[in-house]
Amino acid sequence: MKLGSLKHDKFKNGELCVVSKDTKRAIKVTNIATSLLNAVENWDDVKPALEKVYSDLNAGTLSGEFVVDQSQFHSPLPRTWQWLDGSAFIHHIKLVRMARNAPLPETLETVPLMYQGGSDDFLSPTQDIPQVDFSHGTDFEGEVGVILKGTKLGTKKESTMESVALLTMINDVSLRGLIPAELKNGFGFLQSKPSSAFGPFAVTPDELGDDWTKDGKVTLPLNVELNGEFFGKANGKEMFFGFDKLIEHAAKTRNLSAGTIIGSGTISNEDTAMGSSCLAEKRMLEKINSGEFKTEFMKVGDRVTMEMFDKDGISLFGKIDQKVVSV
Amino acid sequence: MKLGSLKHDKFKNGELCVVSKDTKRAIKVTNIATSLLNAVENWDDVKPALEKVYSDLNAGTLSGEFVVDQSQFHSPLPRTWQWLDGSAFIHHIKLVRMARNAPLPETLETVPLMYQGGSDDFLSPTQDIPQVDFSHGTDFEGEVGVILKGTKLGTKKESTMESVALLTMINDVSLRGLIPAELKNGFGFLQSKPSSAFGPFAVTPDELGDDWTKDGKVTLPLNVELNGEFFGKANGKEMFFGFDKLIEHAAKTRNLSAGTIIGSGTISNEDTAMGSSCLAEKRMLEKINSGEFKTEFMKVGDRVTMEMFDKDGISLFGKIDQKVVSV
Repeated sequence: MKLGSLKHDKFKNGELCVVSKDTKRAIKVTNIATSLLNAVENWDDVKPALEKVYSDLNAGTLSGEFVVDQSQFHSPLPRTWQWLDGSAFIHHIKLVRMARNAPLPETLETVPLMYQGGSDDFLSPTQDIPQVDFSHGTDFEGEVGVILKGTKLGTKKESTMESVALLTMINDVSLRGLIPAELKNGFGFLQSKPSSAFGPFAVTPDELGDDWTKDGKVTLPLNVELNGEFFGKANGKEMFFGFDKLIEHAAKTRNLSAGTIIGSGTISNEDTAMGSSCLAEKRMLEKINSGEFKTEFMKVGDRVTMEMFDKDGISLFGKIDQKVVSV
Repeated sequence: MKLGSLKHDKFKNGELCVVSKDTKRAIKVTNIATSLLNAVENWDDVKPALEKVYSDLNAGTLSGEFVVDQSQFHSPLPRTWQWLDGSAFIHHIKLVRMARNAPLPETLETVPLMYQGGSDDFLSPTQDIPQVDFSHGTDFEGEVGVILKGTKLGTKKESTMESVALLTMINDVSLRGLIPAELKNGFGFLQSKPSSAFGPFAVTPDELGDDWTKDGKVTLPLNVELNGEFFGKANGKEMFFGFDKLIEHAAKTRNLSAGTIIGSGTISNEDTAMGSSCLAEKRMLEKINSGEFKTEFMKVGDRVTMEMFDKDGISLFGKIDQKVVSV
């Protein structure tokens, strides 16, 4: 099933829609749940009714359906109660730490890295990325994530996958120039991680078939373009900790409320032919190969797109399409 | 004006109440705004109506008023879109860094420390603090905080105080045993900062008179007791960065949505007669004075209370009263 949230001036959580598998048509289902957040908070109750609409919409024409214009959709959760971002691709960790001459964590392969992100004001999938200062080093990070039903404190990885309601695609906007100082003071990312954007549609895991693994990895490639040119097609096969483990990590000392989003971290593959899902990696590879960084961080006017296709070539999450603007 | 949120099984944001100045009586005002979060999101529109009720309630008996039982109140925002915690008392920073043999940040007096906390599932003012393992080092941290109206990216400290809707009192529960490993991996606090609790009532700044300064400091003492005995009465006079600067820091690269809470960090005074607002400080002072830590972190059954009184001796925020339980 594919769901989306139409932008709405007054309803900041958006208006819930069911979207056809081919992403071409959609229908408002605010009679079933007012918003996607509301749906996830009552997931087991509302899911059957939403699935019935999805099935009917895919089978034929429904009264009230409309043609999808992705620019009318907000991120599936325009805001939510919690956004936790993992960093589960070890190749990415190695490259970015190398880039800032930082040592690898001793617990690299035993404890997942994860930070608490801001969830109050996400960008829409086609919203401009505000840049205060070029020196902040604006970068994109292509990721996938899970949207959870409520998950109890202490849930172990054997049970965490039952909490996954939906999957999502993420551009975790990062300000590389602000990260070293924030890491140094020990309080984690704050100014260096401004608002993220998400693909217009969130999907239930069954939409991926075998490309969603039992331990919670999305094995499909994420297609990233920068200014209309190929940038990356890294896939999720090298994700070191699956979402089963990431959720367990997050729930170690606290409950996770319904609507919690957990991100995979930047999708990254060792094979350089796969390209990258963020500028920091590409820059580090340049440094390794040629001794110097060549690619700049994002300038005003630069545009990044991200999209992931299922086995049949259908866009799973719709398209993230954002350009950088000055503020 | 004093506001509170009655616990409600179905309405997770609670039911908005106006509370009398003496905290003895209250009245539901869900006809004005369904919840405190909803009120803050429409603050300029709903504030006059709420103030009228507050004035009437203080002047006499209102139809529908009830006797306050603080245990029926949740934290004013049982959950919200964003919780950012500063650490603006330099004496506290010095003591806790000394306790873990960590160097002081080079930017100690120029850049505020602040981390993104979890805001999806706050504890109520009288809710038990869950302890997974005694070795996690359960500690309390007594703080005050501001609840904001929406604040635009880039707002400077000269204007940030206009964003403050309400003040709140906080027990920022901390797991000292988990902090060093999380600091070491560089991603900030996550498992080490489980759910916080807040005083039952949030108040408008005018309730404090001159004890709320122009740069956003609450100068009154915070009375902390552990197991019924004096633990601290540190006041806010030594807060190095006021909330004016903390809000500016938070808004440097992002908008702050209405409902954002920003905390002061543990209230701390150099005069040891003032006691402490967290166990970590008391332990460090013991170590300095006697060479060894004497006070243990919180055990199952230990109880912490926090309360702040205005110039007339009236409880400003009601009482935080929590004990530790095993999970």
